[in-house]
Amino acid sequence: MNLPQYGDIEKAHRRIENLIHRTPVFTSSGINTLVGSELYFKGENFQKVGAFKFRGACNAVFSLPEEDVQKGVVTHSSGNHGAALALAARLRGVAAHVVMPENAPEIKKTAVAGYGAKITFCEPTLDARESTLAGIVEQTGATEIHPYNNFSVICGQGTAVKEFIEDYGEFDLIIAPVGGGGLLSGTAISVKHLSPNCKVIAAEPEGADDGYRSFKSKTLIPSVNPETIADGLLTSLGERNFAIILDKVDDIVTVSEEKIVEAMRLIWERMKIVVEPSAAVSLAAILENKVDIGGKKVGIILSGGNLDLGRLPF
Amino acid sequence: MNLPQYGDIEKAHRRIENLIHRTPVFTSSGINTLVGSELYFKGENFQKVGAFKFRGACNAVFSLPEEDVQKGVVTHSSGNHGAALALAARLRGVAAHVVMPENAPEIKKTAVAGYGAKITFCEPTLDARESTLAGIVEQTGATEIHPYNNFSVICGQGTAVKEFIEDYGEFDLIIAPVGGGGLLSGTAISVKHLSPNCKVIAAEPEGADDGYRSFKSKTLIPSVNPETIADGLLTSLGERNFAIILDKVDDIVTVSEEKIVEAMRLIWERMKIVVEPSAAVSLAAILENKVDIGGKKVGIILSGGNLDLGRLPF
Repeated sequence: MNLPQYGDIEKAHRRIENLIHRTPVFTSSGINTLVGSELYFKGENFQKVGAFKFRGACNAVFSLPEEDVQKGVVTHSSGNHGAALALAARLRGVAAHVVMPENAPEIKKTAVAGYGAKITFCEPTLDARESTLAGIVEQTGATEIHPYNNFSVICGQGTAVKEFIEDYGEFDLIIAPVGGGGLLSGTAISVKHLSPNCKVIAAEPEGADDGYRSFKSKTLIPSVNPETIADGLLTSLGERNFAIILDKVDDIVTVSEEKIVEAMRLIWERMKIVVEPSAAVSLAAILENKVDIGGKKVGIILSGGNLDLGRLPF
Repeated sequence: MNLPQYGDIEKAHRRIENLIHRTPVFTSSGINTLVGSELYFKGENFQKVGAFKFRGACNAVFSLPEEDVQKGVVTHSSGNHGAALALAARLRGVAAHVVMPENAPEIKKTAVAGYGAKITFCEPTLDARESTLAGIVEQTGATEIHPYNNFSVICGQGTAVKEFIEDYGEFDLIIAPVGGGGLLSGTAISVKHLSPNCKVIAAEPEGADDGYRSFKSKTLIPSVNPETIADGLLTSLGERNFAIILDKVDDIVTVSEEKIVEAMRLIWERMKIVVEPSAAVSLAAILENKVDIGGKKVGIILSGGNLDLGRLPF
């Protein structure tokens, strides 16, 4: 398996830095007092399309050779990656195809369509999704860009923490959420190169703890019927991501739904920024005392800010 | 009536610049496309205590002579100004007294107490409020800092748009909300000095339109039973503020409750920032076509981000 090195993340950053936002970092003296530590929050909710996913999608689209990319790109993610791939393809002037289940929420259909993707609807089953995607690849020659189990996507995601350390210096600890593992694996590669003594901890919802169980057993165990408000973290770890995580991540901890909502509300109230539940999982791990942060300088990656404001948990 | 000049705002800025945040500015290509113009949003929701009010309170507290300020400061605002005055007093190491009606929302009591103010509760009537305040002044010798009808407060509020123009150049149009008129009067003084061709427009909720009626009739008409979701704008114009507004503001327009909520949601969704209803009134005026912004460079002051997340209008 070909796994990215830090040099690949550097190349990715040079490739995409004029296409992405160098996102702002937030602090809150109120939250610092509450937790007894110095927390820095990297605001990927301010990234284009509202999530870190644009980094990976952008690197994937812009690293494809001209003759391939002209045939378009395709994915079956209906979430942030679908929107991110659509925008990246539009910036490179090529077609993006997104396969979505017919019953996907209207808000997601609108977002993906709004960035100019061609949506193909299918039955809401894994089989239908994969066969529909295969059909598009066969018909158009488009390249599939997997949301996380993809070399270039991992490299793109690793640029977020690279900026974070460049702008704010070394941390004692970096906490990131884990779903498929794209952000976490890219983050771990960058951190262990730039700041070898810095620990990398992943936070995962209890109701979607395949990452935790895989990490502890050192065997890839996919999710079965995961359930969490953190809808960006429902996916199971990718193989490539898992290999990197086993090698470079220090620990994975799980958090309750209650603490995810509490952390999300705390971020909104104290920092005045909108983050999605998945982005609040790292702070939830701190509030639930799952991570020892006493007196440490802690960096937290806020993964995104896309959610239905009409269906808030508070 | 002694009215501030731009030089007073410059002095205020030098006095407070190390105590306040130089707040960030946000743009949204999505919103720009929607409205057909170039909008810049000055994020006073990221100011200390979550609102521009800290600028004015801070300038007022730090411009008092030592022998006066040692006796403390007092106000009867239970909103953002109460919290702002409490923090400003704490930073100068003096007492802040805040008079609040017994029936004030718990969230406001907690905020004001959290910044270390001494709260004195009174009956929820204007008479009780004023007599309680007078009692505190008599007993302690504290100086009353009115939330908006105050020379130093107006100067402090005028520093927000000063930063805005220093950082982003001249605008064709600046839009600010109007309640008591502290922000609007300070803004108008700064804008007309720094950028004489720039228009200053105020936006006000239809349900609290004393500013609009006063401006159009050139006579100060107080609010009677104002009602709006924009709870920061329920107050009536101050005399000092009105004199400046008549002289320097180009127009006041009113907006519906529906558009305030729509604008607020749009800001949250597209810009990923939390603003209170009062802060959304300026964008509401644009969405309701009350201001001609076609092709113009427009600066909007987002006044604050404090609200009860458990009681959102969407």
